This record gives sequence, structure tokens and C-alpha cells, in this order.
Amino acid sequence: MIKEIAQITIKPGTEQEFEQGVNQAKPLFLRSRGCHGVQLFRSVESSEQYTLVVEWETLEDHMVHFRESSEFQQWRALVGGSLAAPPKVHHVSKVL
Amino acid sequence: MIKEIAQITIKPGTEQEFEQGVNQAKPLFLRSRGCHGVQLFRSVESSEQYTLVVEWETLEDHMVHFRESSEFQQWRALVGGSLAAPPKVHHVSKVL
Repeated sequence: MIKEIAQITIKPGTEQEFEQGVNQAKPLFLRSRGCHGVQLFRSVESSEQYTLVVEWETLEDHMVHFRESSEFQQWRALVGGSLAAPPKVHHVSKVL
Repeated sequence: MIKEIAQITIKPGTEQEFEQGVNQAKPLFLRSRGCHGVQLFRSVESSEQYTLVVEWETLEDHMVHFRESSEFQQWRALVGGSLAAPPKVHHVSKVL
């Protein structure tokens, strides 16, 4: 199991729109192959910075199967208007 | 409840030393005021990049009480030799 960590900066004033979009998109993730959970966090220091954490069984489930799916297109359609820049994405595995 | 997110880059070749240091430091966090958990993640893309996630009841529990404690000094003594740069720290709260 790995976690996708997406650092997201949104346009000023779109907090509500963005959070609603992520909430609406949650089922898109959860019905995708190998997806085991979605969480959204907001930075305490900078209110336009969010971190989306998605749990996947494998890297391929995210980078191949999800990225090439219509669910990914729908996800980007839901939140794309709020993004100030492309999300910075990396993946982590748990050590401790 | 908030999460401290510390982005840590270690010196090449110190992975084992660093992970052991974090493991040894775990009780230092867990006995500190307001601390509810410590997790360590390693980047899939870059093996020298780690993310330490610590759960705190309040920002002050981390930034004031922990930072001014002897536990913080002991934590830095355990892992300081492995760090390539000062950790980049921010805090997040859960939205979804």
C-alpha cells in the first residue's frame, strides 16, 4: 500500500468551491481500482495550500489505471477551476 | 487536533541510521504533552526524502511545549547527524 501525496495551491477565494469539488469527487476515487481512501488536509500556515492524501494498493493503480480513466477526467473537471497551479504529486510508503 | 508535517532530506547512505533514530525517538514524542502519534513515510520517487507526521492536540503543544523541551533536544541529537538540511515543517488540519 502506498499513499499519493498531492500538494495543491488554490486560487484565492475558491476555498469553498475547491472543498466541495473534492467532496463530490470522493466517490470517483473510491470506486477506482486499488483505491482505499481519500483525505483532504488544509495548511494551518497558508490557507490556500491543501494536501490531498489518497491510498492506493500500487503505484500503477494511481499512475496508470486512475490517470487513464474517465474518473480522473471528472476529478480534474470538478476542481480544475480552483487550482492556482498543477498539483505537486509524490508517493510515500510507511516505514514506522 | 492537527498534524505536523516535516519534510526531511537525509544525507546519502544514512537511511538505516536515520530510521533507527526515528524509531528510538518515538517514545520522546509520545510522552510529550498533546502528542497522539508519530508516523514515518519514505518517498517512493526519492529514497532520501522522508515525511514525518506527528499528531498534536494544538499548535502550541508542538511549537512551544515540545520545541522548548529536553525531548526535542534528544530527538535532534538522535537524527541530527543524518539530516542533509533543516526539516521543512508545516501543520495541517483535516477538512475531509
